[in-house]
Amino acid sequence: MNTSFFAELIGTMMLVLLGDAVVANVILKNTKGHNGGIISITAGWAFAVAIPVFIFGNISGAHFNPAVTIALASIGNFPWADVPMYLIAQFLGAFIGAALVLVSYFDHFKLTDDKATKLGVFCTSPEVRNLKLNFVTEFIGTFILMFAILGIGASKLADGISPMAVGIVVWGIGLSLGGPTGYAINPARDLGPRLAHFLLPVPDKGDSDWRYALIPVIGPICGAVFSAFVYNMIF
Amino acid sequence: MNTSFFAELIGTMMLVLLGDAVVANVILKNTKGHNGGIISITAGWAFAVAIPVFIFGNISGAHFNPAVTIALASIGNFPWADVPMYLIAQFLGAFIGAALVLVSYFDHFKLTDDKATKLGVFCTSPEVRNLKLNFVTEFIGTFILMFAILGIGASKLADGISPMAVGIVVWGIGLSLGGPTGYAINPARDLGPRLAHFLLPVPDKGDSDWRYALIPVIGPICGAVFSAFVYNMIF
Amino acid sequence: MNTSFFAELIGTMMLVLLGDAVVANVILKNTKGHNGGIISITAGWAFAVAIPVFIFGNISGAHFNPAVTIALASIGNFPWADVPMYLIAQFLGAFIGAALVLVSYFDHFKLTDDKATKLGVFCTSPEVRNLKLNFVTEFIGTFILMFAILGIGASKLADGISPMAVGIVVWGIGLSLGGPTGYAINPARDLGPRLAHFLLPVPDKGDSDWRYALIPVIGPICGAVFSAFVYNMIF
Amino acid sequence: MNTSFFAELIGTMMLVLLGDAVVANVILKNTKGHNGGIISITAGWAFAVAIPVFIFGNISGAHFNPAVTIALASIGNFPWADVPMYLIAQFLGAFIGAALVLVSYFDHFKLTDDKATKLGVFCTSPEVRNLKLNFVTEFIGTFILMFAILGIGASKLADGISPMAVGIVVWGIGLSLGGPTGYAINPARDLGPRLAHFLLPVPDKGDSDWRYALIPVIGPICGAVFSAFVYNMIF
Repeated sequence: MNTSFFAELIGTMMLVLLGDAVVANVILKNTKGHNGGIISITAGWAFAVAIPVFIFGNISGAHFNPAVTIALASIGNFPWADVPMYLIAQFLGAFIGAALVLVSYFDHFKLTDDKATKLGVFCTSPEVRNLKLNFVTEFIGTFILMFAILGIGASKLADGISPMAVGIVVWGIGLSLGGPTGYAINPARDLGPRLAHFLLPVPDKGDSDWRYALIPVIGPICGAVFSAFVYNMIF
Repeated sequence: MNTSFFAELIGTMMLVLLGDAVVANVILKNTKGHNGGIISITAGWAFAVAIPVFIFGNISGAHFNPAVTIALASIGNFPWADVPMYLIAQFLGAFIGAALVLVSYFDHFKLTDDKATKLGVFCTSPEVRNLKLNFVTEFIGTFILMFAILGIGASKLADGISPMAVGIVVWGIGLSLGGPTGYAINPARDLGPRLAHFLLPVPDKGDSDWRYALIPVIGPICGAVFSAFVYNMIF
Repeated sequence: MNTSFFAELIGTMMLVLLGDAVVANVILKNTKGHNGGIISITAGWAFAVAIPVFIFGNISGAHFNPAVTIALASIGNFPWADVPMYLIAQFLGAFIGAALVLVSYFDHFKLTDDKATKLGVFCTSPEVRNLKLNFVTEFIGTFILMFAILGIGASKLADGISPMAVGIVVWGIGLSLGGPTGYAINPARDLGPRLAHFLLPVPDKGDSDWRYALIPVIGPICGAVFSAFVYNMIF
Repeated sequence: MNTSFFAELIGTMMLVLLGDAVVANVILKNTKGHNGGIISITAGWAFAVAIPVFIFGNISGAHFNPAVTIALASIGNFPWADVPMYLIAQFLGAFIGAALVLVSYFDHFKLTDDKATKLGVFCTSPEVRNLKLNFVTEFIGTFILMFAILGIGASKLADGISPMAVGIVVWGIGLSLGGPTGYAINPARDLGPRLAHFLLPVPDKGDSDWRYALIPVIGPICGAVFSAFVYNMIF
């Protein structure tokens, strides 16, 4: 147990808190940001990633994403021994972040009738349910994410550029590849809040759509690992 | 009385002038930006903070926020003796900034009928009035703000990155946590303009909603102080 | 005649070309960006300024604005002897930029009926005509612009930050203070295109609203000069 | 065959994948980003360019654009001998990128009836068909792009600024000059995906509008080459 654990835990908590909260702001009823559109949601998620990268980048490497941690370990850029600690911190942080969104927007969950909308604050759901294509979309999105993380990591950048670059990558993936599935591209970001939706007293909630839960876990892990191998092979 | 005083005063004036003005542009009648949406409002507030941080960062530390000043003092990063001077400059600057918004948009205040809309240019108001939850939302938002300020301050960043990073933090908090209460996250930003609304001749104004005035003061201060202690304990 | 002349000419041309063109894209008929809203217009103008600052910053200082040139000369930061050359380059560039917008969007000018809309592509026009308040709004906006330029200029920034900072300043002023008058904050940006509208064959055009033409010239000049004196006095 | 080839191929693939995908997200049916507007499309394309520039900037120079490659060669800044390899990589990458968009959004192509909308995901199409003016608009847009690339390249910038600067340039051109033709400003970005639309099994597709295909190829090439000569002459 060390500062990396807390950095990954608090960082992933912030990521999910800020990320799920922007969705809440845009899709729940009676909020200041109701109907803010895709530019607001994708900007919010971009900043939700960039902010903890600014804070924790030099402490834990700012993974906040099991797919990234596993892919980095797969190519020998991160010790396998630390993977479990990172994953625990990430899933725990994601769960707590989602719980804080529930608290912050509690009255707005109460004012919103549609159960799918409430679940949509917590985790992703495809617009057209087609598990194979949904897997492919998550795979491609996380492929880009991982390739960019490795490319940015390999570049000589002035201090403080890389959190902005990562934010731009997440914003771009959201705008471009978020259309079909809502771009989980991170197993903790999806599974942690889904569990929070399942366990916590969300007002008048529906089911947690566990049928879909595997796609945003294995799609991102496969995409990130494949991406890391391709990157390593070529560059 | 020194340059720090003027930096905090003019900086907070700019912050509130630009911040309240973007709200005026979006919600008052007959403006170029009418109905510009949450992306415009949160972008405007982000730049409203980033611009004076660019200008005054090296002069006063660019607090512009009593919650930040008090939290920094609480953990020994800022002398308590200077706190009163900073707070006076901040509240005075916020008041003047709000007054300048009134002048700039005077005809648009006249053309707008709804009294709550006019007050909304000056200070925050919750979408669902629930003082406990409103407090919690302001607490969480300012917790993130303070944690990020300390994390960014502790990072080695190329010169000029940190004003952009702070802008990103404010933009992110606005998009994500602004939904329920409108993210004061700064006692001066809320109380100064509220007093301006109360004292100045706003055309056909309503009451200044003093019942709510304490929440955006104590919520941010508690959140920032708690955040600073947590940050100091772990990192 | 030297490279500074061409830098100011081409830079101001780009500024007005990109700036007026984003307005054309949003308000003329049958364009890809029709009804793109205030976030698009203000982003477009911000980039319209930032791009030539990136290109020409080290060549001419990237004024592109007579108010900035005159204010800098007023406080002794720029030689009066070069002011005429800069102003000629700026007004000439602004005129050419506006002409290129007319060419690029020619068919869309033809498809648009409203004459005020066509003029609105070229130059600013207040939402509520009140010359005193319009002057004040332009004064305040340019005060902020000039104060920020001086503050950013006095800061130690990594190379390439200041064009982004200036872009943020212009974006912020547009979102916040653009509501009443459309933020000329630059005599060349307004007068050059107004003259282009007057002289060039804009399809089925109306009058060029010369009654208002003085406000976006003297408001910005007075605001910038006053700002420079205040800045110099305090910091 | 070297790493530059793969950098240009994968970089242009990412550019077109992310760029065409944001269009898909905004204009195809039943996506998360449906009707996201011009701010989303132009932001998406800006990031689609900035992301591979971050990754590949130091490897291949990050052209991703035959007009840029040819213009650089024209003024002696890039060896003519490498031009064919770069162009092959760029067109191949663009084709593959478009194919991946087809896969990612396959169900949404099926749900969308309008054939012009489906083609619009792949390549540009003018709002008003006027080949001379469309050529001029593409010429001007690419003139700005090339001038900015040369200006940014000649500036001393902290590491990592230039990918952001290029993103800002592309965002600005899109917002401002994208209105009439949809800003190809890159022959590979338009011709590669057009060929993909022609050859690949796009569900219930219409024709690939080959009558227009030459404009977004020769307009950008002429604009970029002319721009490079002008830049070289003056600065």
